[in-house]
Amino acid sequence: MKQQEYIAQNSDRFMEELFDLLRIPSISAQSAHKPDMVRCAEWLRESLLKAGAQKAEVMPTEGNPVVYAEYILDPAKPTVLVYGHYDVMPVDPREEWRTEPFEPVIKDGRIWGRGADDDKGQLYMHAKAFETMVATQTLPCNVKFMLEGEEEIGSPSLYKWCADNKEMLAADVILVSDTSMLGMDTPSITCGLRGLAYMQVEVQGPNKDLHSGLFGGAVANPANVLTKLIASLVDENGHITIPGFYDDVRLLTPEEREAFNSAPFDMERYKKNLDIAEVEGEAGFSTMERTGVRPSLDVNGIWGGYIEEGTKTIIPAKASAKISMRLVPNQDYVKIGELFEKHFRAIAPASVKVKVEALHGGAPYVTPTDMPAYRAAEKAVEEVFGKKPLPFYSGGSIPIISGFERILGIKSVLMGFGLDIDAIHSPNESYGVENFYKGIQTIVKFYDYFAK
Amino acid sequence: MKQQEYIAQNSDRFMEELFDLLRIPSISAQSAHKPDMVRCAEWLRESLLKAGAQKAEVMPTEGNPVVYAEYILDPAKPTVLVYGHYDVMPVDPREEWRTEPFEPVIKDGRIWGRGADDDKGQLYMHAKAFETMVATQTLPCNVKFMLEGEEEIGSPSLYKWCADNKEMLAADVILVSDTSMLGMDTPSITCGLRGLAYMQVEVQGPNKDLHSGLFGGAVANPANVLTKLIASLVDENGHITIPGFYDDVRLLTPEEREAFNSAPFDMERYKKNLDIAEVEGEAGFSTMERTGVRPSLDVNGIWGGYIEEGTKTIIPAKASAKISMRLVPNQDYVKIGELFEKHFRAIAPASVKVKVEALHGGAPYVTPTDMPAYRAAEKAVEEVFGKKPLPFYSGGSIPIISGFERILGIKSVLMGFGLDIDAIHSPNESYGVENFYKGIQTIVKFYDYFAK
Repeated sequence: MKQQEYIAQNSDRFMEELFDLLRIPSISAQSAHKPDMVRCAEWLRESLLKAGAQKAEVMPTEGNPVVYAEYILDPAKPTVLVYGHYDVMPVDPREEWRTEPFEPVIKDGRIWGRGADDDKGQLYMHAKAFETMVATQTLPCNVKFMLEGEEEIGSPSLYKWCADNKEMLAADVILVSDTSMLGMDTPSITCGLRGLAYMQVEVQGPNKDLHSGLFGGAVANPANVLTKLIASLVDENGHITIPGFYDDVRLLTPEEREAFNSAPFDMERYKKNLDIAEVEGEAGFSTMERTGVRPSLDVNGIWGGYIEEGTKTIIPAKASAKISMRLVPNQDYVKIGELFEKHFRAIAPASVKVKVEALHGGAPYVTPTDMPAYRAAEKAVEEVFGKKPLPFYSGGSIPIISGFERILGIKSVLMGFGLDIDAIHSPNESYGVENFYKGIQTIVKFYDYFAK
Repeated sequence: MKQQEYIAQNSDRFMEELFDLLRIPSISAQSAHKPDMVRCAEWLRESLLKAGAQKAEVMPTEGNPVVYAEYILDPAKPTVLVYGHYDVMPVDPREEWRTEPFEPVIKDGRIWGRGADDDKGQLYMHAKAFETMVATQTLPCNVKFMLEGEEEIGSPSLYKWCADNKEMLAADVILVSDTSMLGMDTPSITCGLRGLAYMQVEVQGPNKDLHSGLFGGAVANPANVLTKLIASLVDENGHITIPGFYDDVRLLTPEEREAFNSAPFDMERYKKNLDIAEVEGEAGFSTMERTGVRPSLDVNGIWGGYIEEGTKTIIPAKASAKISMRLVPNQDYVKIGELFEKHFRAIAPASVKVKVEALHGGAPYVTPTDMPAYRAAEKAVEEVFGKKPLPFYSGGSIPIISGFERILGIKSVLMGFGLDIDAIHSPNESYGVENFYKGIQTIVKFYDYFAK
């Protein structure tokens, strides 16, 4: 039990260190934060060295740097490669935050701040679990860390970096905490992730904004046209109408569906948390299936014309939208992006011009539940949380995970400790203090089971 | 001909004065410009006094002030009440201007700048025509000026101000230059204006932006819902689907339609000017009819979710739009606003909440072509432009014009000198130098014919 004692004795310092990490506004989507990305990477390098890494480096990429660290106990022993990301989502709408996004505070048993869960809070559990094993001389195998700064924008530089450093990254499994559990009393391990095809479209009508009186009714309004085009992409049954979109979707067997829907799900609590009267989605599928094993299409942003105070009577020259699709096995994001573009161009009327651009994408991913590392995670979670975790198909995407398999040939285990109340990507992100400490405990146990 | 000589001798000064007026950024939609509104009104008051007004005042309203001036030659003679507006539209998208919006320049025979046509350039022709008649001692009747600063935001204060000053404003006709002609070689006088009902809608889904992976496909996305709601407001034939919307629309007789469509219209030039491949509108009506005598529905602005650079994978908590409808006789904008709101609420799914707000509105207006002041305008235009002007039904709205008739009991004559290439309400607004001077000449002649 000396590991658990070490964690308990150092718990306050662990939290103080996490707060320092959370204070760095490392928003990868906004170029003004470039210097913060570098500062955050340096901070992590030093932290991993202090935690006991034999070496730790900030390695340049074409974008934000990757922090690489390692502890090679014995080359004959198995190796765990820890992946995490130190970049965070933007904070807008800023005015909806009840605390400063980059001034973390603890309240009601939770850590509040951008990145508290996604992914600084979760990646730092790995740093502290590693420190614990080194300090108590219980590290049972080799450990490598690969912490990137571009996950929230689709990891554009990490693919090449991995390919360039394939030998250095050799490992038996990639261990990732960047996902959620169904609940503290319903532990789960994510074994499926959706893929992503993220598009931007622009509809151009007249060559300038027009007076909506002089021209209204006689000239195509690009904003009206855009609403028609987007509206037609999903039909009244929640089916996506792009020809060929579902061709590669793997359907669950009746047995798989039954197992899938046997996971506990409280619809009233779900609706109450979101303050919605009704859920909505593809006909014939449960809410769990809709996010777990079915693809979706969402407008992430839409804009055009006059959006300030008051009124302006114009037909805007153009209107735009960011539209992303979540994909499931065996959909290919490049193919889906192409189908989207072809369809969007085909349905646009001759009265407008359209631009379609693929902003980023990633493949879906599945962890086989019979691989040894998954079994080790299962045992570790059960020991700390008191119940055998359920295999869970998350609706989220971590595009790089399928990239790791393709480039490095290594499978990942997604042992995440977030909860659905954490509001990741939203204002008022938070992470349970208990989740943070239980996560560290679970990770330490994972190494034991894995190296046995 | 001493009037025309006076105009010729003073033409450079007239233009310099107009430039001073155009330099004042009197944008009524943006509260930061409040001081500019007052400055602009003061400037006009002094200008009218110098032009020869017996009195000129800046009169307060609940909003921006009204400039009132008068020259009472003989109470027994008829009176012309000149209406114009000194406020201008916002300038965004700012980056599309090729010159500074508030630094007017003359190039290619045109005056470039915000307000060059709408309405500073046009109202100032009246000030200079008045000066010409006073200076040459040829003023044949009484003149009153009423220049407001809120036309572009729907004249919210002018209705009450008119009602409060009904006696002072007594006149035989209201003369307005705030409209366009079909062309320099196709002069026309606007005898119909559309009404306006301007709405703002908001669709609220979950209580915060959500992760589009974890929730996408299972929860209604307000931006997707908004596109569906807006798309359904106009059907594939260009008909507006709001129940009751067309109930009060006056249909033209076959004879009226024929006369209406006999006005010259060059479709290829129209499309080329706008750089569009096809026009689009209500089935069964010509382009001229679509803007002249048929109502329309346009998205003036739409926004929701992440609209900055890069990507953000969210389901936005809400999405909004500004939607305005142009109305024709005998549609009532209050009733149309109510029908819109009722319908919009009715079609919204239970998975979202909607807000609907009426921002401003105005009634349609028609000038009888047999009234003496219209005939005077017709003769004046014919004399200066060489052709009898066509009666023209403009798609635009000047909501206050129908208000004048209702409140003051006075009909308006809309003798405008703009052209469709003037890009009013758009970047790079301009006004022909020739239009400015011919306008002054025409106005002077109008008074002669009117007072005969």
